[in-house]
Amino acid sequence: MRIKIINPNTTVSVTKLMADCARAVVAPGTEVVATSPECGPASIESHYDEMLSIPGLLEEVRQGEKIGCDGYVIGCFGDPGLQAARELACGPVIGIAEAAMHAASMLGTGFSVVTTLARTRGMAWHLAERYGMKRICRNVRAVNLPVLELEVDGTEVFDAILSECVKALAEDDAEVLVLGCAGMAGLAASIGRELGVPVVDGVTVAVKLVEALVANGLRTSKWSEYAQPLPKRYSGILSSYNLGTD
Amino acid sequence: MRIKIINPNTTVSVTKLMADCARAVVAPGTEVVATSPECGPASIESHYDEMLSIPGLLEEVRQGEKIGCDGYVIGCFGDPGLQAARELACGPVIGIAEAAMHAASMLGTGFSVVTTLARTRGMAWHLAERYGMKRICRNVRAVNLPVLELEVDGTEVFDAILSECVKALAEDDAEVLVLGCAGMAGLAASIGRELGVPVVDGVTVAVKLVEALVANGLRTSKWSEYAQPLPKRYSGILSSYNLGTD
Amino acid sequence: MRIKIINPNTTVSVTKLMADCARAVVAPGTEVVATSPECGPASIESHYDEMLSIPGLLEEVRQGEKIGCDGYVIGCFGDPGLQAARELACGPVIGIAEAAMHAASMLGTGFSVVTTLARTRGMAWHLAERYGMKRICRNVRAVNLPVLELEVDGTEVFDAILSECVKALAEDDAEVLVLGCAGMAGLAASIGRELGVPVVDGVTVAVKLVEALVANGLRTSKWSEYAQPLPKRYSGILSSYNLGTD
Amino acid sequence: MRIKIINPNTTVSVTKLMADCARAVVAPGTEVVATSPECGPASIESHYDEMLSIPGLLEEVRQGEKIGCDGYVIGCFGDPGLQAARELACGPVIGIAEAAMHAASMLGTGFSVVTTLARTRGMAWHLAERYGMKRICRNVRAVNLPVLELEVDGTEVFDAILSECVKALAEDDAEVLVLGCAGMAGLAASIGRELGVPVVDGVTVAVKLVEALVANGLRTSKWSEYAQPLPKRYSGILSSYNLGTD
Amino acid sequence: MRIKIINPNTTVSVTKLMADCARAVVAPGTEVVATSPECGPASIESHYDEMLSIPGLLEEVRQGEKIGCDGYVIGCFGDPGLQAARELACGPVIGIAEAAMHAASMLGTGFSVVTTLARTRGMAWHLAERYGMKRICRNVRAVNLPVLELEVDGTEVFDAILSECVKALAEDDAEVLVLGCAGMAGLAASIGRELGVPVVDGVTVAVKLVEALVANGLRTSKWSEYAQPLPKRYSGILSSYNLGTD
Amino acid sequence: MRIKIINPNTTVSVTKLMADCARAVVAPGTEVVATSPECGPASIESHYDEMLSIPGLLEEVRQGEKIGCDGYVIGCFGDPGLQAARELACGPVIGIAEAAMHAASMLGTGFSVVTTLARTRGMAWHLAERYGMKRICRNVRAVNLPVLELEVDGTEVFDAILSECVKALAEDDAEVLVLGCAGMAGLAASIGRELGVPVVDGVTVAVKLVEALVANGLRTSKWSEYAQPLPKRYSGILSSYNLGTD
Repeated sequence: MRIKIINPNTTVSVTKLMADCARAVVAPGTEVVATSPECGPASIESHYDEMLSIPGLLEEVRQGEKIGCDGYVIGCFGDPGLQAARELACGPVIGIAEAAMHAASMLGTGFSVVTTLARTRGMAWHLAERYGMKRICRNVRAVNLPVLELEVDGTEVFDAILSECVKALAEDDAEVLVLGCAGMAGLAASIGRELGVPVVDGVTVAVKLVEALVANGLRTSKWSEYAQPLPKRYSGILSSYNLGTD
Repeated sequence: MRIKIINPNTTVSVTKLMADCARAVVAPGTEVVATSPECGPASIESHYDEMLSIPGLLEEVRQGEKIGCDGYVIGCFGDPGLQAARELACGPVIGIAEAAMHAASMLGTGFSVVTTLARTRGMAWHLAERYGMKRICRNVRAVNLPVLELEVDGTEVFDAILSECVKALAEDDAEVLVLGCAGMAGLAASIGRELGVPVVDGVTVAVKLVEALVANGLRTSKWSEYAQPLPKRYSGILSSYNLGTD
Repeated sequence: MRIKIINPNTTVSVTKLMADCARAVVAPGTEVVATSPECGPASIESHYDEMLSIPGLLEEVRQGEKIGCDGYVIGCFGDPGLQAARELACGPVIGIAEAAMHAASMLGTGFSVVTTLARTRGMAWHLAERYGMKRICRNVRAVNLPVLELEVDGTEVFDAILSECVKALAEDDAEVLVLGCAGMAGLAASIGRELGVPVVDGVTVAVKLVEALVANGLRTSKWSEYAQPLPKRYSGILSSYNLGTD
Repeated sequence: MRIKIINPNTTVSVTKLMADCARAVVAPGTEVVATSPECGPASIESHYDEMLSIPGLLEEVRQGEKIGCDGYVIGCFGDPGLQAARELACGPVIGIAEAAMHAASMLGTGFSVVTTLARTRGMAWHLAERYGMKRICRNVRAVNLPVLELEVDGTEVFDAILSECVKALAEDDAEVLVLGCAGMAGLAASIGRELGVPVVDGVTVAVKLVEALVANGLRTSKWSEYAQPLPKRYSGILSSYNLGTD
Repeated sequence: MRIKIINPNTTVSVTKLMADCARAVVAPGTEVVATSPECGPASIESHYDEMLSIPGLLEEVRQGEKIGCDGYVIGCFGDPGLQAARELACGPVIGIAEAAMHAASMLGTGFSVVTTLARTRGMAWHLAERYGMKRICRNVRAVNLPVLELEVDGTEVFDAILSECVKALAEDDAEVLVLGCAGMAGLAASIGRELGVPVVDGVTVAVKLVEALVANGLRTSKWSEYAQPLPKRYSGILSSYNLGTD
Repeated sequence: MRIKIINPNTTVSVTKLMADCARAVVAPGTEVVATSPECGPASIESHYDEMLSIPGLLEEVRQGEKIGCDGYVIGCFGDPGLQAARELACGPVIGIAEAAMHAASMLGTGFSVVTTLARTRGMAWHLAERYGMKRICRNVRAVNLPVLELEVDGTEVFDAILSECVKALAEDDAEVLVLGCAGMAGLAASIGRELGVPVVDGVTVAVKLVEALVANGLRTSKWSEYAQPLPKRYSGILSSYNLGTD
């Protein structure tokens, strides 16, 4: 099966990181494709950025459908455009916040999220509510580092994240930790080893969940809300989004 | 004061309808500006349409800030891009679903929404949850007419909406009715007269709520989540969205 | 239009304060009437006081109906008798806690209330729940000053309130502040200037919300729960409350 | 021990009915006192009636304290003035809706309420929410008979109530039935025999719950919200409510 | 009437303690029977222990039915097997956590639980949710003493519990305290005296609640979920649990 | 990796069915072990049956740990003993109701469960609440067939289930269907084909979710609530459950 990871921001080094992490966990026979959109923001750190990442993301889903992708992962912890993507896709579409929160709920009785900037904490809380996970989300913590600084190698970033994780265990009643940014992919195992608790990276979990659903023959329901959108006139720089042209 | 109504779809007849309705209720001294974006869908009937209406909407807010608008109304019952718009705007930004639901909560103990297509019912429920109104939202009903057919003059559309309103009173325990589409602006008064209950049109209520907040000197909080987004690189057809260029 | 503000306690200096604040924000053509009841407590600082403020309040609504008031504001942060008042009134009736919380929800993602006595904090939480605002009410803080001390001029009261507001921003994840007592009317603007965040005074917001609803032709629904109460025998000191005598 | 049942309306035949039912279930050594207030409505069928029943009710609690009552039952399914009464009383105060709903929750996985007038259904739902019982309250049904018609002897009233009870079992997924009016006291046993399910009358259950709490030495907490109200000036027909005169 | 208290663990000294406390509060004519099961754990401090206490508990209910017990109390703060016991019993079955939380809700606006081990705090929270009490459960605190150490006489245990109770009043906004372990039966009165707030012991309250329900003629509903289980083949060490052999 | 499916009832034909279905979906290299306990009920159709299935289930987990199983599936839609099993297991443990509901939440905006007996509907609702899925669980429907009749071959059972599925789509606003019994494993694909919507079988999804978590290196958190239970005296027929003997 072919699973497409879409990094909704345009920073390709993060895209590559996600692809590498994903390929390390998929089953034999699962192909991982990873892309960034052609248009949109270099990183997603506000509602504004998130909303403007969605046109590029949706175009990537549309292209994915043309080459027969079996499922999709949205590689940003805000799960941008998840519902619109489900309208376009035949197979399953899973966001990395969604995947991480659901997985965390099966490993302990409560989790804390460690994310980048304080101003995005509300988005994580909103997703927790949307996925029915608010009751077990114990806290959303921010290391207050911009998304793109996560890429800088070295121990400083790692230590900042680790330090919030330690506090989450001590102060939040959390039993599981969730890394709240795609750019943290690759750190879960080492933090988990350090702390002796499960640390969930949404990217690799999401890929495996898509694999699980596809293996079960399960696809997005087209009954009602996620039915294919109707073709209609689109104007201006978005005129190509008219699905009637497919 | 100057209030800008942004119709997130590109159908200008609806924009004009909203402007006319709004001008009939504002106080002396309140100027109403109404626009449609240059890019995006002709109507909003899916998550896909909704997400793709947001870039154009945000551009309109950005332009509005340049000319000193005091507040904004988002004229689509899905309240697309509301939070991103709040990041951009200094003054208040109110969605018409938000306005209508809050107003309805002050007029009776429960309301039903009457909207256009069944597939958008879930969006209205989601907004009811987001605004804390799920507990008094008794039902979301659809007349199953496409958004743009509302524009067609004549009694057929009116009768279809009226008929669902009658059912809402009889079957839903609703005491107040909410019209769930900007294209229904202008029908509230006549349906209200017919049925003897309050019928809320989000457009005119939203305009008055913006007026109320501005008159109180209240603006969007820039403390934390709705702070101004940071400038950063934007690519492709969205490259002009880099706020560093303002 | 004519809006009646009813201060449910009998301290007329507070009534006058509310009227002055309200008159400063209403539109041209809106007349503000403000009264205190003839019977009841001098201040409201317990459930006992609150319940005993309601007979006087309801009499004021009844008199208001006789002279054709278009809407009402209940000027106490406990919103006493709100639902009973709605049964009596044709036009809208809005409580100042209700108004403040709804307004706050449109200006930020969370608010804290700063009220007078700690023992009344539970009432504010209950109202937050009733209005669907519990999920965004981050805290209810008390300055622990009796209601009538708010009237004493000078900086001490102001500083006590300001100090709790500062803590709310620093500790509660609040983005908006709500003043939780009618006697704090008039302080919102100066605290807002000091802190650079929206500070909501329920009195002036409530007056503008009534104005907004009336301008939209919206009145209290008489369908079901808020229908006019039936005339019946009333005994003792409340015998005049039999509506059959109107 | 001495338990005072306060019927918040002034119809003494209902007061007598409650006393008779209560005396049939109390333990040896428990004295039941039952009264109606001197002022207020003859029946409670609206928020207006409910609010105006509270001054008389609170006076009865105050008198009860003077003669050393150990606990109180508020004998109206709206539980009027419950929190204010708790401020006045040293011992426990329990409302009959509160008692009935809590008891029902221990006898089955869901209950339906059968009450008098449709317009009061919202009050029962609100109480269910307040007591944490909304999740197991399956429905609130109305027989649409005025409260005082319950007193009329004969099978018509009984049949109307029984008929709604039958529907509750068949349509609501209810396993327990709750009689939603003090005037239905005395019918629970016969309806229960007829239907073979538990039918809860709040009056007799409330009396036994007060007895249970008092036997455990448990009294109303005076820590914070239910502390004794402070003396203060009361005006007009309510001037005697100043607690400083006690 | 005859009420059976079942201590789900096999430590008979605790069983005796519960019986003594219960006998001190029941009405004349109420007989208290108290037992421990023949099989199962010596104390309940994990989900594992709790689940393995249930077979013995259910056997005790089955035996109780044979001798005509009128109602049951499950004497462990996890309320193990409550729903299964209700299927077996004709009369009411009440858990001590259930009883304590419901009683606490009638005595103040919020309560904190003080329990033994930190790892069982989640169970108390889960029960609070199940009983609709999560909204007024302010905290669940642990003294971090194993259950069986509560039996050791002396002031050390008492002081540890008292100390958490003091913190609950100071830090949690609690107005009522709930002792979260059957082994704490007998301490409620002295802690209550010390602190001047109601302290609820679930054992004695549960016995009185069973008494209250039975006095009202109320039994477990056999309509749907709590109907008697069907006889069927049971294997191995549990083969005697086939109800067809009764 | 080795995944153990534990059928908590003793009917081995169902165990074999689950194993067959699971083996059809696992990745190369995943070994599926499936067992029934030696003690307990032949089918699970009440709380009584469910509670008595748990000792046998826990023994199976304990044995699984001895042979190094990497994860577990609990093969009954009540997810019996899930939390206790997590205390015993190092790897992940997933219930089939849990797996099915989480998967369904990723495929549509709402699901209905179709289960066997009406009396077990409440259990499914309770699990939906526990997993945060109540808000998207649209209905729980029963075909009213005993569990063991599902095994009987032929179209009658299939038609009964299909018929409820059809109603769920037409009446419940469901977009996804969940089969609410392990004995329905194997029917999902054919019902899905018939109706054109995703139909989720918890058994095969749970196996894949365990696989996904294990592939990510994620194990049950031993921090706090799911820590290994302490050894202690166990009596009677359960004496071997003392973990000190391991």
